[in-house]
Amino acid sequence: MRNQRVGFLLGLIFAVGLVVQCNGGVTSTYRRRLEASGDMPLDADVFRVPSGYNVPQQVHITQGDYDGTAVIVSWVTADVPGSSTVKYWKFGSNLNLSAEGDVRQYKFYNYTSGYIHHCVLNNLEPDTAYYYAIGENDAGRKFSFKTPPALGPDVPYTFGLIGDLGQTYDSNITLTHYKANKDAAALLYVGDFSYADNYPNHDNVRWDTWGRFIETSAAYQPWIWTVGNHEIDFVPEIGETTPFKPMRNRYPTPYEASRSTEPYFYSIRRASAHVIVLASYSAYGKYTPQYQWLQKELSKVNRTVTPWLIVLLHSPWYNSYNYHYMEGETMRVQFEAWMVQNKVDVVFAGHVHAYERSHRISNIDYNITNANCSPVPNNNAPVYITIGDGGNIEGLATNMTEPQPNYSAFREASFGHAIFDIKNRTHAYYTWHRNQDGDAVTANSMWFTNRYFNPTNDS
Amino acid sequence: MRNQRVGFLLGLIFAVGLVVQCNGGVTSTYRRRLEASGDMPLDADVFRVPSGYNVPQQVHITQGDYDGTAVIVSWVTADVPGSSTVKYWKFGSNLNLSAEGDVRQYKFYNYTSGYIHHCVLNNLEPDTAYYYAIGENDAGRKFSFKTPPALGPDVPYTFGLIGDLGQTYDSNITLTHYKANKDAAALLYVGDFSYADNYPNHDNVRWDTWGRFIETSAAYQPWIWTVGNHEIDFVPEIGETTPFKPMRNRYPTPYEASRSTEPYFYSIRRASAHVIVLASYSAYGKYTPQYQWLQKELSKVNRTVTPWLIVLLHSPWYNSYNYHYMEGETMRVQFEAWMVQNKVDVVFAGHVHAYERSHRISNIDYNITNANCSPVPNNNAPVYITIGDGGNIEGLATNMTEPQPNYSAFREASFGHAIFDIKNRTHAYYTWHRNQDGDAVTANSMWFTNRYFNPTNDS
Repeated sequence: MRNQRVGFLLGLIFAVGLVVQCNGGVTSTYRRRLEASGDMPLDADVFRVPSGYNVPQQVHITQGDYDGTAVIVSWVTADVPGSSTVKYWKFGSNLNLSAEGDVRQYKFYNYTSGYIHHCVLNNLEPDTAYYYAIGENDAGRKFSFKTPPALGPDVPYTFGLIGDLGQTYDSNITLTHYKANKDAAALLYVGDFSYADNYPNHDNVRWDTWGRFIETSAAYQPWIWTVGNHEIDFVPEIGETTPFKPMRNRYPTPYEASRSTEPYFYSIRRASAHVIVLASYSAYGKYTPQYQWLQKELSKVNRTVTPWLIVLLHSPWYNSYNYHYMEGETMRVQFEAWMVQNKVDVVFAGHVHAYERSHRISNIDYNITNANCSPVPNNNAPVYITIGDGGNIEGLATNMTEPQPNYSAFREASFGHAIFDIKNRTHAYYTWHRNQDGDAVTANSMWFTNRYFNPTNDS
Repeated sequence: MRNQRVGFLLGLIFAVGLVVQCNGGVTSTYRRRLEASGDMPLDADVFRVPSGYNVPQQVHITQGDYDGTAVIVSWVTADVPGSSTVKYWKFGSNLNLSAEGDVRQYKFYNYTSGYIHHCVLNNLEPDTAYYYAIGENDAGRKFSFKTPPALGPDVPYTFGLIGDLGQTYDSNITLTHYKANKDAAALLYVGDFSYADNYPNHDNVRWDTWGRFIETSAAYQPWIWTVGNHEIDFVPEIGETTPFKPMRNRYPTPYEASRSTEPYFYSIRRASAHVIVLASYSAYGKYTPQYQWLQKELSKVNRTVTPWLIVLLHSPWYNSYNYHYMEGETMRVQFEAWMVQNKVDVVFAGHVHAYERSHRISNIDYNITNANCSPVPNNNAPVYITIGDGGNIEGLATNMTEPQPNYSAFREASFGHAIFDIKNRTHAYYTWHRNQDGDAVTANSMWFTNRYFNPTNDS
């Protein structure tokens, strides 16, 4: 009797604890040094131009089609255009394959780019390691990548997540930590690349250094690109009025494969995931191309093939920092209901230079006159994760709104990266790794249960 | 004593009445026939091609600079490119002036446009009647326009307002009524032009008929263009993936004069008004070109020169019809606070095929966690007017949200047009004219007091 009562009380406390956990949030007490670290100097080793005449540099790859059987290889040559051919072969095979790309240059105010090459490798076999070689004879370079397994609901696959990386010493720590994780097979990048626009006239030399900086990862596994505000590069004062010019020339996306008409919103399927990339800085009002495309794309999602529905965008819809607060509202108002109706598993964003994870909440009942405008728990809603903590020159966002709002589950102003590790159709293990004194420390984690196959209250 | 008490009671009732008037609204009981009228047939008289080889057709003008001393003349020739010269002269003057324009064609799926000419007439004298002649010798045509008075705070000026016109029999009634008003000196057009996109493959022949239809007004006074959803013409199914192609080729705007970088958002000053045109279907998120431009443009408004600050856009922010309900939310969330901070006098929109006028209200206090998301009276806020009732093929919006929300002052599902008649720096008289059995009947009116010079509670 007495034990029963104690058990009941313990159960009550446990239940209350759960409620508190569901409705409340944690503001991490961990404090790292707060000074922004400067950009690494132009002669830093990570920016070194490979030696040799016209040798390929700034090599990076991204997915080249809808389903992961193609890769786009991109690189820059500095002296002459040179060859746009990629030679490639399966690991251990004698069969030499070859694909022909194209080459371009662009001007930005007083800067002229190198010769930028893009080449698509099609019809790759799934789950297969390939070597590829670019450049000519004496100045050739060789890299490798592995294709994802064929699409399937229970295919395990590990995505990395980085946002707002920049090219500071902190950026270097983040990238080094990310590369140390040997399981991460592809990177979901949530926008803000080089921060060249922090330099006079958006000095595009910093786009080149960034391309060399990320090569040690991006030449070997696909980086899936989301556009951020630092890619807009809209500078009418110096005559640069075409938004996204450097990004568009340097970082292609396979947007046509998903029937998109602009490179900044598109979709890929990879292993057991359907990844939708949205454009915070394009039009998204009703009837616009992005609106029409997203509506169609969501209708094409087949959770029995790709159970995990992941959305990437730059400007977060749920953010409790005093930086960029409510900037994502206009897009949230337009698209949040679709995220809930389609049971999106997770929405990753950048923009705010800190880390935050939300509960599963929604705010879609507002009708102007009913005053229903507060986020409420919703098991059909995504978890919203802000991971704009790559470590760029602008420093950390440390000032938070107080008290921590109900929608916020965990927040901490540290740099780091994350891993989304899909186990099967029902479970994925998510970890956020803060940069802590030279180590990547798991500071936040969560078992995701799939919204389609196992929609338990996991948040 | 008794009289005093009665007076007190009457005063109380009057005060209560005022409160009711401020917080409540009127849903007009007037009912016109509700069937949509069809488009006028291709051989309708209003669409007639002027006779003669290569004779200019579809003639229309718009303001050509920031301050109203330039005009853009546009027209189409069907047989050969012909001349792009405009000859012009002041009424009663022997001095012949001349300006050289350019000519273009565009293709849209299986349609090829005629030869579209645009020519800017610069350095016009204020408050002056001009003749202009286009075309060659035997096939020349002559029109006239009057320039606005020089900018000044007390310059009277009368703007007309039409939206969603289309080319039905109802459209013809609206345009005829508008033309009958001899005071209207320039038309503020709030989007949705020809409704060509309701035809298979967006049959651009209907852009041509519309150009001929409006010529009897648009060749003689500037129509100030706002882009609507029916101008997007985004049809990836038939390979048409460049939004706004027909509009951009046919209806130029003086966007560069206000330092805009896209034709769909821009600003003009005219007489005592500063008119800002926003683009509902372009990007407007923070950092985007439209956002950056609007921020700068609002800072340039000088109410001591142009007291009347008027904003045009297509998709209304306040609308209590069940058509397009809340479609304008995403843009409202982004820009409404700026309208209030800058004391905009009035925001005109189209899109909803009916008429509605709001009280002066705002909804800008929401911060996610405070639940303050209801429109409240605000004397610094604009009046929002929906005037998408030109009379197009899609018919009237008749289904309204009930009860009429507090923000709505008057609503009626009839076709019509409006007049905004600026008297001086403090007062403007606004009237909405419903199409009623062949007459334009003033069915709603309001004395506007200027938000900068005389911000009384006028709504």
